[in-house]
Amino acid sequence: MKLSIRKDALNEAIGHVSRAVSPRPVIPILAGIKIDADSRGITLTASDTDISVQSFIPLEEDGETIVRMESGGSLVLGAKFFSEIVRKLPTDTVELEAPDVHRAIIRSGNAEIELVGLDPEEYPVLPSVADAHTFSINGLKMKQLVQRTVFAVSANESTPILTGVLWQLSGGKLKLTATDRHRLSNAECEVAADPELKLDQMVIAGRTLNELSKLVPDNGTMIEVAATESQVLFRMDRILFYSRLLDGTYPDTSRIITNQYKTEMIMSTKALTDAIERAYLLSREEKTNIVRMATVGSGEIEVSSSSLEIGKVTERIVPDHLAGEELKIAFNSRYMLDALKVIDQEKIHIGFTGAMSPILIRPEQEPDMLHLILPYRTTT
Amino acid sequence: MKLSIRKDALNEAIGHVSRAVSPRPVIPILAGIKIDADSRGITLTASDTDISVQSFIPLEEDGETIVRMESGGSLVLGAKFFSEIVRKLPTDTVELEAPDVHRAIIRSGNAEIELVGLDPEEYPVLPSVADAHTFSINGLKMKQLVQRTVFAVSANESTPILTGVLWQLSGGKLKLTATDRHRLSNAECEVAADPELKLDQMVIAGRTLNELSKLVPDNGTMIEVAATESQVLFRMDRILFYSRLLDGTYPDTSRIITNQYKTEMIMSTKALTDAIERAYLLSREEKTNIVRMATVGSGEIEVSSSSLEIGKVTERIVPDHLAGEELKIAFNSRYMLDALKVIDQEKIHIGFTGAMSPILIRPEQEPDMLHLILPYRTTT
Repeated sequence: MKLSIRKDALNEAIGHVSRAVSPRPVIPILAGIKIDADSRGITLTASDTDISVQSFIPLEEDGETIVRMESGGSLVLGAKFFSEIVRKLPTDTVELEAPDVHRAIIRSGNAEIELVGLDPEEYPVLPSVADAHTFSINGLKMKQLVQRTVFAVSANESTPILTGVLWQLSGGKLKLTATDRHRLSNAECEVAADPELKLDQMVIAGRTLNELSKLVPDNGTMIEVAATESQVLFRMDRILFYSRLLDGTYPDTSRIITNQYKTEMIMSTKALTDAIERAYLLSREEKTNIVRMATVGSGEIEVSSSSLEIGKVTERIVPDHLAGEELKIAFNSRYMLDALKVIDQEKIHIGFTGAMSPILIRPEQEPDMLHLILPYRTTT
Repeated sequence: MKLSIRKDALNEAIGHVSRAVSPRPVIPILAGIKIDADSRGITLTASDTDISVQSFIPLEEDGETIVRMESGGSLVLGAKFFSEIVRKLPTDTVELEAPDVHRAIIRSGNAEIELVGLDPEEYPVLPSVADAHTFSINGLKMKQLVQRTVFAVSANESTPILTGVLWQLSGGKLKLTATDRHRLSNAECEVAADPELKLDQMVIAGRTLNELSKLVPDNGTMIEVAATESQVLFRMDRILFYSRLLDGTYPDTSRIITNQYKTEMIMSTKALTDAIERAYLLSREEKTNIVRMATVGSGEIEVSSSSLEIGKVTERIVPDHLAGEELKIAFNSRYMLDALKVIDQEKIHIGFTGAMSPILIRPEQEPDMLHLILPYRTTT
């Protein structure tokens, strides 16, 4: 292999694939980034076996030369030092030469870096997504769906399926659901799909979705999603992002969502968020995160939290609308704040179904998402 | 106590004193911030016994009211929750009322926060600096002296005196020295002092100087330094910063500094820094940080680092000036980079006194600082 390449393009591609490099690779070769150079351009690949990312660098873009290819080939270089040293190279264009697979030389200005190469023959083959079902979604929409749900996945590895987000497609509508048994979030939107296509058990690890979100370009590019029984591939511009699907059956959560409320209210999202944040600060010191909410006097609600050692936070809010029974409830304020923070509308609707039954939170208008929190049983 | 105060002024003062609050206070009362309100204004105090900080809030500033004082008094409130909740209060002016020392109420908009107070009688008295020797120094100059030396203090608590920086005043000149036995840095500048005043054993912990630097205003205000046998007080605008001095005798380092060089060179600070940074990246992977420097061919020097597992970094630099014997030396690149980073001049002078003797680094012009590094003994 012998080529020269623009440092910024190489850096960007390394940045993409580095998300798939594990700090503790399961096999030594996966500590490396694979570089394949041919007449079309350069492909970088990295994988931790759960996720694999490929980034493609074309020979030219918009008439500008990115890569000058003298001869192609394949090479695997240790990801950590390779990515660090490329970032620090002194010139805008760098030379890469590999006399054989065991040795690569990078030249940039007066600096010459020799790198020990790993054998590219040992690098695992990426999963096949032949015969996949495919649909397309706007990248920004996809990021939004993920951001509105992924915080609710379980952190507990004893139920692996709940550490993922369920993706369901039906009638051209994509719905994401996450739950850790104490709370549930879902969000949905229209996608470009065959209306006959139905997916109902595609579960992707929350961690994976967070990495994926960071790779989605901010320009609203369309992303092609290709799903098989065990794998999913996200194809965006020049990046391919592969992920394993989680094994197991996701619980049916449809029955716990209701709209039979005992008390319901509409209020300013910001006023409630700010009040709960103040109460949360105190409840966090107690390590319980318990905040209380109660109807008081003439159509007001009171948000409060207290601690024998520190003191008490109390705040009253006048909702725009308040209907139903008197209310006295306690909940995990961290869960409530997580939900409130992804609601970008000015007003929210909260429905209460009983002192020990779910609290349902959604934007007042166009409720394309729903958050559910189970209350705490408290003695006072 | 009953008063109202501008939230930004309260926040700022809390920010100042919070630097002295330990996460693990030695006595419970030191988890608190002491608030003293009287007819002149409000004084906040915090201490971890090693350092103590006071910040004063006047009743008014530039004709604008900061504090409306109905009645004064003293109060101690838990620092962590108090500082967090004040930052989150909804209004620009907040009310603080304490019916007695055990209970304080903060009111801001619709929020009411009750805080459990600790007994101000239990709060330790700050150290006395009566009979102190004093001098004055421009705040920015002082920050610069600290920044140029403090990185060289020892991290090893087994020789406590070396975890501090030695401050020596003589003939109106202040000189700071830090060493961990493998390297040494010193820096000096003129200060406003009685030319007869001599201080030669004032050693301040490196950690303390880092905290102090963060409190020095960026407007070049003069700082009064008052030193006793065991304490030092830095007086700046409305902040008083007290620190205990380290016990013990600082070693005499004057004899190891020489200007009898076997090899010396003048070169671009940036060119050398960049080359060593690249070599450092490789040496760090080996956990040795060893980088080599050697004269080669016709007046060039070579910076290099190598590792059997990863590869080799080599870079040549042409110095502006190179004189003396041929050179082949190895050193800790982290130490060299620490020194190079605080040299803000374009050119540096490096003097070598032998393969196993100190390397001396200073700016080419006006050498008001000097850095010394001991080389490594290496087998190759």
